[in-house]
Amino acid sequence: MIIDKNSDKLNKILNRGELFDEKYLSVVMDILKDVRINGDKAVKSYTKKFDNHDLNESYVIGVDELKSSFDKLESGLKDSLIKAEKSIRFYHEKQMEKTWLINGNNGIVLGQKISPVENVGIYVPGGKAVYPSSVLMNSVPANVAGVENIVMSTPAAYGKVQESVLAAAYLGGVKKVYKIGGAQAVAAMAYGTETVEKVDKIVGPGNIFVALAKKLVFGFVDIDMIAGPSEITIIADESANPQFIAADMLSQAEHDEMASSVLITYSKKLAESVNAELKKQLEELPRKDIAEASLKDFGAIVLVENLEEAAEVSDRIAPEHLELCVANPYELMFKVRNAGAIFLGHYTPEAVGDYIAGPNHTLPTGGSARFFSPLGAYDFLKRSSIVNFTKDALRECAEDVMGIANSEELTAHAKSVKIRI
Amino acid sequence: MIIDKNSDKLNKILNRGELFDEKYLSVVMDILKDVRINGDKAVKSYTKKFDNHDLNESYVIGVDELKSSFDKLESGLKDSLIKAEKSIRFYHEKQMEKTWLINGNNGIVLGQKISPVENVGIYVPGGKAVYPSSVLMNSVPANVAGVENIVMSTPAAYGKVQESVLAAAYLGGVKKVYKIGGAQAVAAMAYGTETVEKVDKIVGPGNIFVALAKKLVFGFVDIDMIAGPSEITIIADESANPQFIAADMLSQAEHDEMASSVLITYSKKLAESVNAELKKQLEELPRKDIAEASLKDFGAIVLVENLEEAAEVSDRIAPEHLELCVANPYELMFKVRNAGAIFLGHYTPEAVGDYIAGPNHTLPTGGSARFFSPLGAYDFLKRSSIVNFTKDALRECAEDVMGIANSEELTAHAKSVKIRI
Repeated sequence: MIIDKNSDKLNKILNRGELFDEKYLSVVMDILKDVRINGDKAVKSYTKKFDNHDLNESYVIGVDELKSSFDKLESGLKDSLIKAEKSIRFYHEKQMEKTWLINGNNGIVLGQKISPVENVGIYVPGGKAVYPSSVLMNSVPANVAGVENIVMSTPAAYGKVQESVLAAAYLGGVKKVYKIGGAQAVAAMAYGTETVEKVDKIVGPGNIFVALAKKLVFGFVDIDMIAGPSEITIIADESANPQFIAADMLSQAEHDEMASSVLITYSKKLAESVNAELKKQLEELPRKDIAEASLKDFGAIVLVENLEEAAEVSDRIAPEHLELCVANPYELMFKVRNAGAIFLGHYTPEAVGDYIAGPNHTLPTGGSARFFSPLGAYDFLKRSSIVNFTKDALRECAEDVMGIANSEELTAHAKSVKIRI
Repeated sequence: MIIDKNSDKLNKILNRGELFDEKYLSVVMDILKDVRINGDKAVKSYTKKFDNHDLNESYVIGVDELKSSFDKLESGLKDSLIKAEKSIRFYHEKQMEKTWLINGNNGIVLGQKISPVENVGIYVPGGKAVYPSSVLMNSVPANVAGVENIVMSTPAAYGKVQESVLAAAYLGGVKKVYKIGGAQAVAAMAYGTETVEKVDKIVGPGNIFVALAKKLVFGFVDIDMIAGPSEITIIADESANPQFIAADMLSQAEHDEMASSVLITYSKKLAESVNAELKKQLEELPRKDIAEASLKDFGAIVLVENLEEAAEVSDRIAPEHLELCVANPYELMFKVRNAGAIFLGHYTPEAVGDYIAGPNHTLPTGGSARFFSPLGAYDFLKRSSIVNFTKDALRECAEDVMGIANSEELTAHAKSVKIRI
């Protein structure tokens, strides 16, 4: 488990995500094409095949039914979801952008106009795992941004969708839920069918079929990011508590076998205590087998010289979650460039960020924090540039515009200026 | 040419972009795979095949050579490019975002940290069209955002790259230029080769092979948008000058046969004058054949009842460029939701926005202004969420976090909180 920064295991962790999966590409392409051409008929046949239920009745859950799921939810979980919604809303409101206009010379006005995207579709995976928190993390930012029409799509094995997911959808402002999943759900929302309205943007995680479908419809609609395997990196010094660190590493490792948990430290003593603590806490976990496999393949404790080097190694990993369990986390925070979410100090386990702190838990995975951001209110806004020239301003730049246009052999561009002055 | 808002021609214009092109997908997939496995060797063989030159010597143009291209540029075009760079920089600096931190209850700190993407690759198409302005529009925003390493890739037919393109690259802060193009250039920048450094984000327009390659590497690196055919929509009232409007429509139509130029007006008189003026001005254009074909297939003058209806039709088109040639453009601006760039009043032809006004000319096309934004400084920044809890704050939300975690059967998540309190 304990390695140095040049170890091959670190490369194995860095390269564990394989985003370009040709094997399934042609299957997904066929599903997209079929749904695009045959609409509901295709959606129904794939749903029968993959989710084992008939979509003969309408497959839309309306807002009344969502509200009744919410009303029926047991009060403990309901109150927690209400609190979570509140803090997610609070944080994402801070991300809102404003239209601006500025004056230039000669009466020129320049600006940037912000508008919400109109129609958003949220994909929510089905299967054994049921994540009402993910429903909130995807719907609340869209709601904060002012999206008029938020819909959701989720596979309903044998026709059933979990109540807590429907309750969270109601809380997040979702207008309707389609009981369909997989590439066919992405296709239906991207192209529209007789039942499903075409949306402008599709967000939310999913399996390889969903991920490939999102990639292929990108451009036709917008998508969020392509989710890969999840990870945590922890930078710790001798002020850290090995029990806390082991618990946090295991909270990542229990997700799935491809998850990665990495501790980076210069303290050999801490490294050894965490290593021992991991073995101990592992024994108590219901999801022990998953966590053990994940730690074995993609877990590591990296020994470095100092915190600067720790930040460098972390930036190479570009982790989804980064905990700074050090005496002075704010200083270290500014040395780190690539991380989805940064958790500071000894009392900020990743789990508070997953549920209740407010920031989004949809984060760039598999090293994509080098270029992707957390899902945010900004993902549901778009910008339009604003330009207003006066006749004087146009006259002053006319030679330049016509010069460049003519160098690019676009004479009608030049003419559109010349005719005005 | 003159139609009503329910005309089939409008649907033809809306559906002219076909972004999902299976025909070439397997070709592009093979090129990506080959470059990923065989690196420079594969890049060299595709370059010989498609661009007809040998990459036996190094295919990298360094910053010294870029500078010498800039120094040699004739002074008229040079001065215009310098002016353009200045106003592009001015506008994009206004888009910069700042790291923020806020205090919550119980000593909680929440925030959002902004960092530039580290390595950006700009794709610049080759062929007959040479667009130094596009080089600036892609490189300057990256430079403003603080990207450390900006590289460029462009096909060099018979080994030659246009001097004006290299000069613009120097002005935009590009560090090196690779003389390669097509899907192989995208693959080289996404995966890295012996010669080409791997980048984090690839931006810039290209042909269908480049667009598909970008779509397939998305997630492995970030990309900007997928560019489709270009368009202008003009909303005009009786205050507009038909000569100006015809000139602007033609400046779009001259780009290519797939370009679309649409006037929306409630003035029948204006519609008829513009129609007549289009025929007249068309005769004077060197690129008459292209512009004529574009107008015939995808040009239209749409008659509506009033400006509200004009805004609705425009929002359905979601045009790349929108001109508001009306008496009160600011009022109308706030009625419009979907447009890449909005040009206000009678003296703001699209061409000033293409070159010198400052806002970016890389804009969402083919209706994608419903969800995409212009290229901006924000495209080269990424965000990290910041969370800092205290022991008190953690204690206060512990029940909620553990409750949600347990409902999602993630017990190690719950444990990471419990162990701390």
